[in-house]
Amino acid sequence: MTARLELRSDNVAGAHPRVLELMVEANGGSGPAYGADAWTARAESWFRDHFGGDTASFLVWNGTGANVSALRAMTRPWQAVITSEHAHIHVDECGAPELLAGVKLIDLPSPDAKLTPEQVREAGLHGVGFEHHVQPRVVSLTQTTEYGTAYSVAELTAICAAAHEVGVLVHVDGARIANAAATLGQSLRAITRDAGVDVLSFGLTKNGAVGAEAVVFLAPDLAREFRYIRKQGTQLASKMRFLAAQVVALAEDDLWLVNARHANAMARRLAEGIRDLPGVTITQRVEANGVFAILDAATHARFAAHADFYVWNESTNEARLMTSWATTEAEIDAFLEAIVRREA
Amino acid sequence: MTARLELRSDNVAGAHPRVLELMVEANGGSGPAYGADAWTARAESWFRDHFGGDTASFLVWNGTGANVSALRAMTRPWQAVITSEHAHIHVDECGAPELLAGVKLIDLPSPDAKLTPEQVREAGLHGVGFEHHVQPRVVSLTQTTEYGTAYSVAELTAICAAAHEVGVLVHVDGARIANAAATLGQSLRAITRDAGVDVLSFGLTKNGAVGAEAVVFLAPDLAREFRYIRKQGTQLASKMRFLAAQVVALAEDDLWLVNARHANAMARRLAEGIRDLPGVTITQRVEANGVFAILDAATHARFAAHADFYVWNESTNEARLMTSWATTEAEIDAFLEAIVRREA
Amino acid sequence: MTARLELRSDNVAGAHPRVLELMVEANGGSGPAYGADAWTARAESWFRDHFGGDTASFLVWNGTGANVSALRAMTRPWQAVITSEHAHIHVDECGAPELLAGVKLIDLPSPDAKLTPEQVREAGLHGVGFEHHVQPRVVSLTQTTEYGTAYSVAELTAICAAAHEVGVLVHVDGARIANAAATLGQSLRAITRDAGVDVLSFGLTKNGAVGAEAVVFLAPDLAREFRYIRKQGTQLASKMRFLAAQVVALAEDDLWLVNARHANAMARRLAEGIRDLPGVTITQRVEANGVFAILDAATHARFAAHADFYVWNESTNEARLMTSWATTEAEIDAFLEAIVRREA
Amino acid sequence: MTARLELRSDNVAGAHPRVLELMVEANGGSGPAYGADAWTARAESWFRDHFGGDTASFLVWNGTGANVSALRAMTRPWQAVITSEHAHIHVDECGAPELLAGVKLIDLPSPDAKLTPEQVREAGLHGVGFEHHVQPRVVSLTQTTEYGTAYSVAELTAICAAAHEVGVLVHVDGARIANAAATLGQSLRAITRDAGVDVLSFGLTKNGAVGAEAVVFLAPDLAREFRYIRKQGTQLASKMRFLAAQVVALAEDDLWLVNARHANAMARRLAEGIRDLPGVTITQRVEANGVFAILDAATHARFAAHADFYVWNESTNEARLMTSWATTEAEIDAFLEAIVRREA
Repeated sequence: MTARLELRSDNVAGAHPRVLELMVEANGGSGPAYGADAWTARAESWFRDHFGGDTASFLVWNGTGANVSALRAMTRPWQAVITSEHAHIHVDECGAPELLAGVKLIDLPSPDAKLTPEQVREAGLHGVGFEHHVQPRVVSLTQTTEYGTAYSVAELTAICAAAHEVGVLVHVDGARIANAAATLGQSLRAITRDAGVDVLSFGLTKNGAVGAEAVVFLAPDLAREFRYIRKQGTQLASKMRFLAAQVVALAEDDLWLVNARHANAMARRLAEGIRDLPGVTITQRVEANGVFAILDAATHARFAAHADFYVWNESTNEARLMTSWATTEAEIDAFLEAIVRREA
Repeated sequence: MTARLELRSDNVAGAHPRVLELMVEANGGSGPAYGADAWTARAESWFRDHFGGDTASFLVWNGTGANVSALRAMTRPWQAVITSEHAHIHVDECGAPELLAGVKLIDLPSPDAKLTPEQVREAGLHGVGFEHHVQPRVVSLTQTTEYGTAYSVAELTAICAAAHEVGVLVHVDGARIANAAATLGQSLRAITRDAGVDVLSFGLTKNGAVGAEAVVFLAPDLAREFRYIRKQGTQLASKMRFLAAQVVALAEDDLWLVNARHANAMARRLAEGIRDLPGVTITQRVEANGVFAILDAATHARFAAHADFYVWNESTNEARLMTSWATTEAEIDAFLEAIVRREA
Repeated sequence: MTARLELRSDNVAGAHPRVLELMVEANGGSGPAYGADAWTARAESWFRDHFGGDTASFLVWNGTGANVSALRAMTRPWQAVITSEHAHIHVDECGAPELLAGVKLIDLPSPDAKLTPEQVREAGLHGVGFEHHVQPRVVSLTQTTEYGTAYSVAELTAICAAAHEVGVLVHVDGARIANAAATLGQSLRAITRDAGVDVLSFGLTKNGAVGAEAVVFLAPDLAREFRYIRKQGTQLASKMRFLAAQVVALAEDDLWLVNARHANAMARRLAEGIRDLPGVTITQRVEANGVFAILDAATHARFAAHADFYVWNESTNEARLMTSWATTEAEIDAFLEAIVRREA
Repeated sequence: MTARLELRSDNVAGAHPRVLELMVEANGGSGPAYGADAWTARAESWFRDHFGGDTASFLVWNGTGANVSALRAMTRPWQAVITSEHAHIHVDECGAPELLAGVKLIDLPSPDAKLTPEQVREAGLHGVGFEHHVQPRVVSLTQTTEYGTAYSVAELTAICAAAHEVGVLVHVDGARIANAAATLGQSLRAITRDAGVDVLSFGLTKNGAVGAEAVVFLAPDLAREFRYIRKQGTQLASKMRFLAAQVVALAEDDLWLVNARHANAMARRLAEGIRDLPGVTITQRVEANGVFAILDAATHARFAAHADFYVWNESTNEARLMTSWATTEAEIDAFLEAIVRREA
């Protein structure tokens, strides 16, 4: 009997072994706390190399911490953050942005979890100067999106231009920014800074880390008081080098990109294997490491016999099938064989 | 030439090797995210074993996160938290309790960083029912204290009784709770639950972890909605097993206690070695892993030639000398020899 | 030349003369501050008479203050408030609920600004127990709504039942609760407490007050700590008797009801006068003191020549025409005559 | 039998009749809501005349609202507000600054409720740049103080200079700023803007208003986004003209100054009458409208037989005796006669 295929989330995977190896290595001897150590310096240097020499980067514990801290640096409480209706910050952070930043989130319809420049421009102009309304200040994009789709460089550039035109800053929730770089075949800088992004939540955990993320300021002015924001927001690690070692491990030999490409490839392999099955309707373009598909009842049962995954939209029976750096070709193939066999 | 002695903080030490070993072990295969895994179950079981069968424990990233989340579970924003003027939550968390919990901290004078039952009773009765005043709701004790002193079981019991008598709950910031158990020769339960403590921030990082703490509810009713508090407060780890593995490592063979006893012993050894030196006035009882001493200028310079440490009180030239699980006898002795030699 | 008709808002009207008369009367001599005076006692007594003997009422300055304070008493920050997409708390309070209560607002589509029991039940069950999601806790209805429509007793009863069934409390933003009682021909109690409402923001300002509102707890348990919420939320008046005198003035001889009936009648008169005009499409049932109508460009210009009003929805050219206790029949008729004359 | 003398608070007094007269006058006809009316323009003009032509003033409901809104405009949540231990914002606002602004208050010892330039400089330098500490940003002075004392122009100037030197802004809680101008014999501008004050909470309620205060920006840059802060903080009045009419009434013929001078004179008259009585120890300089005196038990009883007042410090039996614009010479004299008669 074959093992079950893990498709629940890319954070169900463990850490890449190299990440733990470097954490062990970082454990040699004592080191200054709170980021004044050599490992953190190496991590920061990597961010500067990839995002521009004046980039300011700050390591934090997790994605919600990165997103909320970034938004706090970009907003005052009477301002608004424009998002997609599917955005993690809107749907899956238990109200953290509202509590910590005090801001209101303005969620816009987006069938593929992507906003358009027109939406951003319109929302960015809504209620400006009218004291009864929250004031648009940030648009937050998720890259790759919660639906496994990716904004192209052209789309990002157009959104950033539209946002800036109306006085709105651009934040990217990059929990899966590596998957975006991989699928777009672009550098990290090309899909962030060069496109006009101001602040990036740079995700490492889903990419193979134990637990580490970074807030990367591409508009360095916004970082000026961020060290207080990080501390007050409970996101400052004392033994920072253990976060930094995770960055260094994933930076080394572009392991972050290798991992992301692999995860993406596994999703494509899975999508190709199920696309033509009866009872399966793939609902989104498969551009990163997620496959979204409406499954009929029999197909759902067959899938569930051989894989773990979540139903994303209960009203339509849309399933979310997530691959990760740790998913293997053999696992995908065994799953496909198993469900096809049942089908026959 | 001897290496410099590290006395800046117990979080400057690295992690105990066993902690990283178990993190590597926990990395085998995938596991449910957000705490539904076997490692987290083991950690929770350890807390129940040591604090009582109905204890509810929740792993979080760091000490400020533990403290603030605990206080959010115990208070509403118009309430007050009674603390010592030296309390970490008051002095060293950059206003995190005020931002996240909305509460006001009432800081009381405490030369040795310990509150008395009389102080707690008086503060707990102040302004009760008067709408212009914040309402006393929690007293937060640090154990061992920021001055390296320990509350005895009798002291804790008396404070808890006084607090409860006036309707005030008891929180313990146990960033160094292990050092307290070690110095008092008491079980964890004896110095918390059995003394009347309601909620404990259980510290692991300073005790040898990479980065992990727990909020332990000894009054389990207070935990009812804590999972939302943890998530909204950005303290929920996706790959929770890597936090849990740290608990399991320190639990195994009472490594937490071994580490704490050692750190405490190193502080005593250091204190004994410097106590009678001219130019040194030890200011606090050395009950845990910190030595506080006023150093005259020449002595300070001599110390600083061989050790790294912080000045705690600039107006009195009081230095804080912290030992950790990683400090060795040889390092202490080499330091003592070096400064004595210089003295001669 | 006739005066312009004032249709911008019912808060553009002044105060009813009787309100100021009683404020002058209340000014005789000194009186205890913060609500311990005889006028406040009379106001509280009136609320008990109309809403039930155990009702707890608290006077506050304004509607946003009433709404936000009420929500703070009903929620914790990780919870959610279900509202209509048109709700004042969602659209017109500049993020006050998010800042002060920390909560997230879940806005639902509602073409006539009314929620349905089905919407409330579904939203009330969404994400319950899932720590990544805010937890549904309150549904906030506006009565009469931002679109001038009224929930019937049957509708309210059904919504309250649905809400309570799924553990959700019911708040009513009653900035125009008097208009609702008037249009429904029901007592205040029938459309609130008896229908199942838990907490009411009782509006007086739009009904003829200078500036005063009340938070009325029909579920008195929720009021237990409200005096601290009011004070901490900057809504406690020192010279409270001047707020209370406004309540007493509007209570006297049911002036509140007289005012509301009149305002409603003026809106009906206006609606009847314009309904059949070419270029006018009335978009909502005219149940209270507002008329919503899409005006073509020529009609808009004709209206604007003789009246002041706001465009409510710029994308459809929908105008909002608000009458108040102070609008006179003669003013309406003069306006109608003027625009019809121009039409001819 | 003589009436009891009212000494509880200057907010126990009613409103000056002229205030209500102008509120009645302001009630003529409709007027734009939210401050776009002629009365508000007159009030704003008065502030510009008295504080400088680029002054930005905003009317709000009450003192706590003014203070908290002002602090929100001056701070970010990780910053600190330096105050006296007796400051209203620290002691009597139920944690409103912590909740709404997120800031921490640093309270300093001040026997007469006045801070010194040295205290401000030292506190303003404490922990600057250290991410674990809140960052000093504002010093908030109360003028006249909670102890009835007044900062002189020289003192204010020295404090403002010290504050600005270390990058700290100056806020004045001017709930009794009129009493200060009166006692110092200085213009409002001399004791605020010209001394270096950045933002003033301008109090009217205690001076004879029904309920109205203003936030006055002497450093107009700080006002840029204040209209959102006022609205989000629940301090925006819809029928603003009724707040403005109160300002206009107190502005007319310098009624504010007449009222303040009178209140101050009544306190001096009272102090002179009791100063030499056995059992009375006046504890503070009587510079404004409050007399603070330790009363022995018999004296306290004798006072309490003829007057209403509060014990300010229960541990020392220090009473606070507050006069107001409404206190009469006859009332003071009758009280003095009564207690002296009893004494004989």
